[in-house]
Amino acid sequence: MLEPRSPDFDQRVRESFARQGMMQHIGASLVRVEAGLVEIHVPYHPSLTQQHGFFHAGTIATAADSAGGYAALSLMPADASVLSVEFKINLMSPADGDLLIARAKVMKAGRTLTVCQVEVFIVKNEIEKLCALMQMTLMTMMGMADDRGRFG
Amino acid sequence: MLEPRSPDFDQRVRESFARQGMMQHIGASLVRVEAGLVEIHVPYHPSLTQQHGFFHAGTIATAADSAGGYAALSLMPADASVLSVEFKINLMSPADGDLLIARAKVMKAGRTLTVCQVEVFIVKNEIEKLCALMQMTLMTMMGMADDRGRFG
Amino acid sequence: MLEPRSPDFDQRVRESFARQGMMQHIGASLVRVEAGLVEIHVPYHPSLTQQHGFFHAGTIATAADSAGGYAALSLMPADASVLSVEFKINLMSPADGDLLIARAKVMKAGRTLTVCQVEVFIVKNEIEKLCALMQMTLMTMMGMADDRGRFG
Amino acid sequence: MLEPRSPDFDQRVRESFARQGMMQHIGASLVRVEAGLVEIHVPYHPSLTQQHGFFHAGTIATAADSAGGYAALSLMPADASVLSVEFKINLMSPADGDLLIARAKVMKAGRTLTVCQVEVFIVKNEIEKLCALMQMTLMTMMGMADDRGRFG
Repeated sequence: MLEPRSPDFDQRVRESFARQGMMQHIGASLVRVEAGLVEIHVPYHPSLTQQHGFFHAGTIATAADSAGGYAALSLMPADASVLSVEFKINLMSPADGDLLIARAKVMKAGRTLTVCQVEVFIVKNEIEKLCALMQMTLMTMMGMADDRGRFG
Repeated sequence: MLEPRSPDFDQRVRESFARQGMMQHIGASLVRVEAGLVEIHVPYHPSLTQQHGFFHAGTIATAADSAGGYAALSLMPADASVLSVEFKINLMSPADGDLLIARAKVMKAGRTLTVCQVEVFIVKNEIEKLCALMQMTLMTMMGMADDRGRFG
Repeated sequence: MLEPRSPDFDQRVRESFARQGMMQHIGASLVRVEAGLVEIHVPYHPSLTQQHGFFHAGTIATAADSAGGYAALSLMPADASVLSVEFKINLMSPADGDLLIARAKVMKAGRTLTVCQVEVFIVKNEIEKLCALMQMTLMTMMGMADDRGRFG
Repeated sequence: MLEPRSPDFDQRVRESFARQGMMQHIGASLVRVEAGLVEIHVPYHPSLTQQHGFFHAGTIATAADSAGGYAALSLMPADASVLSVEFKINLMSPADGDLLIARAKVMKAGRTLTVCQVEVFIVKNEIEKLCALMQMTLMTMMGMADDRGRFG
């Protein structure tokens, strides 16, 4: 199930990640890219917070969405692009810490649809704590290479 | 059901919104605050995008999460704070446009839990198009005024 | 958006509904079929309950899933079948009453994917109360007529 | 996290399960009860199906909801009852087989809210295949013993 369908998936994922303005905007980095597994880190910054000073649920969802999207893309053919269809996220503990870690894995890679689970951890005083869980659906857009620019 | 339980809900929502670093970071503005109804706008900027140049799903979720959270808070007692428990969002059309509009409404305001629906529209050439739908659950944190700072 | 793509959608929906063993098993009836809108009723029966004697969340989800699925199918071409991709449901009030009503409407009918919202009401002493909300994603299976039997 | 707060959790879960009319109605059995882990089995029957003869998504959701609910209840105090707040389920493969297995585990047991993940497998020719994934939120209803009957 976690067999990549293109040998250069690592490069395609990294190039696509670099094109996401939002990833740079929140200071995210792509820490791990394997077939069906992607990890994204976001260090704490006051500009990423909600009203109590913790990471905003939207920041958490943003990191998790990209992690899941690239976990899915890593298993897609070279001439395909990935689209988030929907996701659901539970925010289980306040994201009070120095670093956010989103770890996505593909649970099912179908021809058209992919399902991922993403675990998000908050790191404080070097202790990792699960703070959010996402379950998401993604779509393979065939014949639309990811770097082709805007699609219609 | 959409009766506010504190007369100054508008001010409390606006002050809390102003404390969310992430709202400023994505250039969001709070355009409408009524009892159980909140609207947030986010103008297009390249720093808010995914790999094809559209608004990132995370940007959409961020605006929708704050809209839903403040729609919920608008109906809560003055000494309460709001917490996102979970949300689910469908991305229905590419968010290709100049302005993102998140409109949240409370569907059920319970003692502990609130359920909101958020419609997100993308505006292009002055035409509004529904691009995402969120359904979310929020929690009333009693005895924890929203401006009390970090909670434990 | 709510234009049917086949003239006999009403008949196709009713025939498919009749083939769902589970609909008969829970005593469900198909009360309304329009283009993009379907309503299913389930009268109370002790065999449909959870531990407190109310309608089980699974009974509610079952009615809502079929309502959403058939709202989606009503807009699909004649040689297509419908598949539930995923759904999310909020159970907002105890389903304590005599009749469950699931009303589904299509929010977006795309070529491959359809998004529906389903409102579920509980009727007690002739008063309807919103007890659950579902947001769901469905898939058009082209070239697989709904009555073709098991697919592979 | 997976520490039970009452010694007789196994008995309380089994008694509550026995009071769910819907569990008997779909022929479900409670196969495994541990602290934070519950497994429910549902053998195939034509009355549990959708239009193609597979297990209906609602049947799958029903089994998964009860499994998650009882995994949550297993960790709650003796004088508490459990309520499903919401759930989201992805239907990943056709549930074409002889037996449905729902395995729930608690991911976070908070004071008020619990988050569970449920994996649902379909067994055909003695081979288990993951066919659905659920992520759900449950609520602890304190001071309302599960067998107290209808609550208000």
